[in-house]
Amino acid sequence: MLAAVSPSDPTAPPRTAAALVIGNELLSGKVEEANVAVLARALRGLGVQLERVVMVPDEVDLIAREVKELSGRFDFLFTSGGVGPTHDDVTVEGVAKAFGTAVVESPELARMLRDHYGDRCTEGHLRMALVPEGASLEVSKEVRWPTIRYANTWLLPGVPEIFRMKLPVAVARIGADVAFVSRAVFTKMDEGDLRPLLDAVVARFPDVGVGSYPKWQDPTYRTKLTFDGRDAARVDEAKDAFVALLPAGEPQRIE
Amino acid sequence: MLAAVSPSDPTAPPRTAAALVIGNELLSGKVEEANVAVLARALRGLGVQLERVVMVPDEVDLIAREVKELSGRFDFLFTSGGVGPTHDDVTVEGVAKAFGTAVVESPELARMLRDHYGDRCTEGHLRMALVPEGASLEVSKEVRWPTIRYANTWLLPGVPEIFRMKLPVAVARIGADVAFVSRAVFTKMDEGDLRPLLDAVVARFPDVGVGSYPKWQDPTYRTKLTFDGRDAARVDEAKDAFVALLPAGEPQRIE
Repeated sequence: MLAAVSPSDPTAPPRTAAALVIGNELLSGKVEEANVAVLARALRGLGVQLERVVMVPDEVDLIAREVKELSGRFDFLFTSGGVGPTHDDVTVEGVAKAFGTAVVESPELARMLRDHYGDRCTEGHLRMALVPEGASLEVSKEVRWPTIRYANTWLLPGVPEIFRMKLPVAVARIGADVAFVSRAVFTKMDEGDLRPLLDAVVARFPDVGVGSYPKWQDPTYRTKLTFDGRDAARVDEAKDAFVALLPAGEPQRIE
Repeated sequence: MLAAVSPSDPTAPPRTAAALVIGNELLSGKVEEANVAVLARALRGLGVQLERVVMVPDEVDLIAREVKELSGRFDFLFTSGGVGPTHDDVTVEGVAKAFGTAVVESPELARMLRDHYGDRCTEGHLRMALVPEGASLEVSKEVRWPTIRYANTWLLPGVPEIFRMKLPVAVARIGADVAFVSRAVFTKMDEGDLRPLLDAVVARFPDVGVGSYPKWQDPTYRTKLTFDGRDAARVDEAKDAFVALLPAGEPQRIE
């Protein structure tokens, strides 16, 4: 089932999500994965933390095993890829297998496909009407072509443009509680020198996510420090506590 | 141990690899993952198939669990990220835990760090001398700064520029047997119409990987079909068999 939107308590643990990215073309390096970062950012705006991403080939049994595990461990699961009509599109079959249900033709999708293709509609096109039995077809006013959802698992397409077109339907349905906020501090110090300062802040603010990211050859800074959480006041406190520890001339900037 | 390079038999199963991508910044969408496709392509040139990618946060126990599983299931494991000196760099600890070994200071790395930083060298910098006990330090003539390897697990940095600088050391050490070859056929047909043609080719060439990738709004083609394998003759046969099934006016091009 869809996880209920939790009360607007920024100190409560966030809802969690996983992504299952499907496609031989990604594992062979022919295509660069382009949907995970977009998904992650959209989820953070809702207060949902993406906690795990798994990339597997176009194989029914591997997909089924991952869907079963990830949909059970996290509040939401998003699959990306494998939803077209050809032999290598096996996500619907994998999801059905994971949930122990059959693959059936959706009369609604079959009707839409026949309307769309008209006389040109073939058995190949109608493969796109197959869904796990019991799935919901999710639409919004803006996005009329349905997205398949089974329980907490959303089946999104791998093509980046279509992934981006469909994601808002899931976003609207899942709903926001308390969005994550993120602050960034840029310094010309290196990570070795920053370490004791960061340790002090991490010890004082265990509830704030603190990250340190060296930049390779940027004239304006050397290390970017990030402070993340859903409690904006605590995030700012941690960021300010860190800035107060910096030597003269630092930071370069704060965002 | 490193898997031995298999005999140059293109019909033998390829050596396999997995990647473990580590970093909160990727799971929050602050940074786009940029190393997997580069790794995948380098491995295919060696005849090694990347079969699984897992992305996890900067947490020792999660990293340890994945390293244990992935290093056991695949011939090679590559980790990306979490190898710097700050609190969120916990890959070395995770790998040590996975293999049941201690984290120790490498005298060789400590010496190199002291030489590099001179009077400025701090305890923070020396964190980068920590390795799983029993690890090898891999170098090449071109890449003098060592890369840590423990058994079949290579610890690569997350910063894309440094990942690319270090990858050749692993590539040289792993060695090539029979590289994958890939052919692409571009058509203006849609996947629904292509399906029966592809099914016929897939049935005749079970040993060739056949992929179908629709393109969103490209004036020159609509669907790209790919034919992949380590037996170039079979790959070309499959590609030619597919092209022979196409109607007049197709394909748009072959690569």
